[in-house]
Amino acid sequence: MTDGARDVAEGPTPAIVLVRPQMGENIGAAARAMLNFGLDRMRLVAPRDGWPNRPRWRWPRARAGCWTGQACSTISARRLPIATTSSRPPPAAASLAKPVLSPERAMEQARALAAAGKKVAVMFGPERAGLENDDIARANAIVTVPVNPEFFSLNLAQSVLLMAYEWRRQGGDVAHEVLANTDFASGIEVEKLADHWERELDRVGFFFPETKAAGMKRVLRNMWTRLGPTKSDVARFHGMLRQLLRDRG
Amino acid sequence: MTDGARDVAEGPTPAIVLVRPQMGENIGAAARAMLNFGLDRMRLVAPRDGWPNRPRWRWPRARAGCWTGQACSTISARRLPIATTSSRPPPAAASLAKPVLSPERAMEQARALAAAGKKVAVMFGPERAGLENDDIARANAIVTVPVNPEFFSLNLAQSVLLMAYEWRRQGGDVAHEVLANTDFASGIEVEKLADHWERELDRVGFFFPETKAAGMKRVLRNMWTRLGPTKSDVARFHGMLRQLLRDRG
Repeated sequence: MTDGARDVAEGPTPAIVLVRPQMGENIGAAARAMLNFGLDRMRLVAPRDGWPNRPRWRWPRARAGCWTGQACSTISARRLPIATTSSRPPPAAASLAKPVLSPERAMEQARALAAAGKKVAVMFGPERAGLENDDIARANAIVTVPVNPEFFSLNLAQSVLLMAYEWRRQGGDVAHEVLANTDFASGIEVEKLADHWERELDRVGFFFPETKAAGMKRVLRNMWTRLGPTKSDVARFHGMLRQLLRDRG
Repeated sequence: MTDGARDVAEGPTPAIVLVRPQMGENIGAAARAMLNFGLDRMRLVAPRDGWPNRPRWRWPRARAGCWTGQACSTISARRLPIATTSSRPPPAAASLAKPVLSPERAMEQARALAAAGKKVAVMFGPERAGLENDDIARANAIVTVPVNPEFFSLNLAQSVLLMAYEWRRQGGDVAHEVLANTDFASGIEVEKLADHWERELDRVGFFFPETKAAGMKRVLRNMWTRLGPTKSDVARFHGMLRQLLRDRG
């Protein structure tokens, strides 16, 4: 479990730049996608219909915090642009000799740049056509998502989501594994449990034949440790055994 | 660039299990999301309206390859289930003492299980409510996506997309960085370029005053190497210099 997506990166977070986006609905979906992972700077370059209509397209509300967005005619020269392309690098990549990065590597580099105080822009093209060669020529690198070549259906918001997820994933504060509310039994508790079961099972003739009894006990004792029971589990196993004996009378 | 999402994992890929999904449209979107990253086994547990209507909900077509899908009443006991929850582990996590994993760690474990020949199921709850405690009780682990606690808007298809992306990202065949079609100049070519520029700049009196000339030359020579030019770049720099000299007459 993580405490959430508060960004601990040093330096500025990347701006998500939508180049010539068409539909307000898609811009809203892209905005929600990036905010899921704490990216809160959106720039629209020459949006077809201007800055989108807030209530209509489920535009993120004020609770999104320090959300900033603006429409502009070109990408800010103060940001280092990274171009995202659908599945394969476009022809421009070949002639322009740009590095083609996975989302993982691209966000690694973006984090390194941010840590050095640089501002990064991640560019996304219009919904259908994608970025044009002139857009790509301005970018420092090209990102392609490693999609299935036989089935490709990422939309604009999903592309933004994946890049924002990658940014977030690489944050140092993501907890990878937490065992929720677990209070494991101590070694002594597990040993006492093993003793209890061994004693009672011995009494009912479980360890038979006698030549195999020592081995069977060792296997059983090992099992209790291997199971890694919680304190509650240990209490439960004691209780179940007592109840079974009581029932037998 | 990658050759695509052909899965090189040993063993079976995880099944995406939608538990009590409501809308055919969302099931179709989830199906497309997973196929983007080469996951091609979907199971619907007790879908409200049965198996979805193919043409209506942009259902993946045959070109998706070995796509399999089926509706069933319970999760197959032959698969090890992992439960995904929206943002925070549900109350059940606390009482059931299950590990809560990041998507990254969950897919690491899924790959390890697959490599050992085990079948994994990644469970997603109904669109609004999410998985119920009874569903979660059957799971080996709980996955939560590290979203922004102040802004959370992942839908079913986006959750499926992120898990499928994580599975794919960890595939051994994802290329992280390729410099498209780049033919770097050899050391000798760069050295000849440096010689050419130094010679001509010397002739026009660039290295002035004489006491600083050696240092200036060293900095310049270092620059050519550092730039890492391609063969085309080297030809271009030779050509530009020649043209400048020609123009001067």
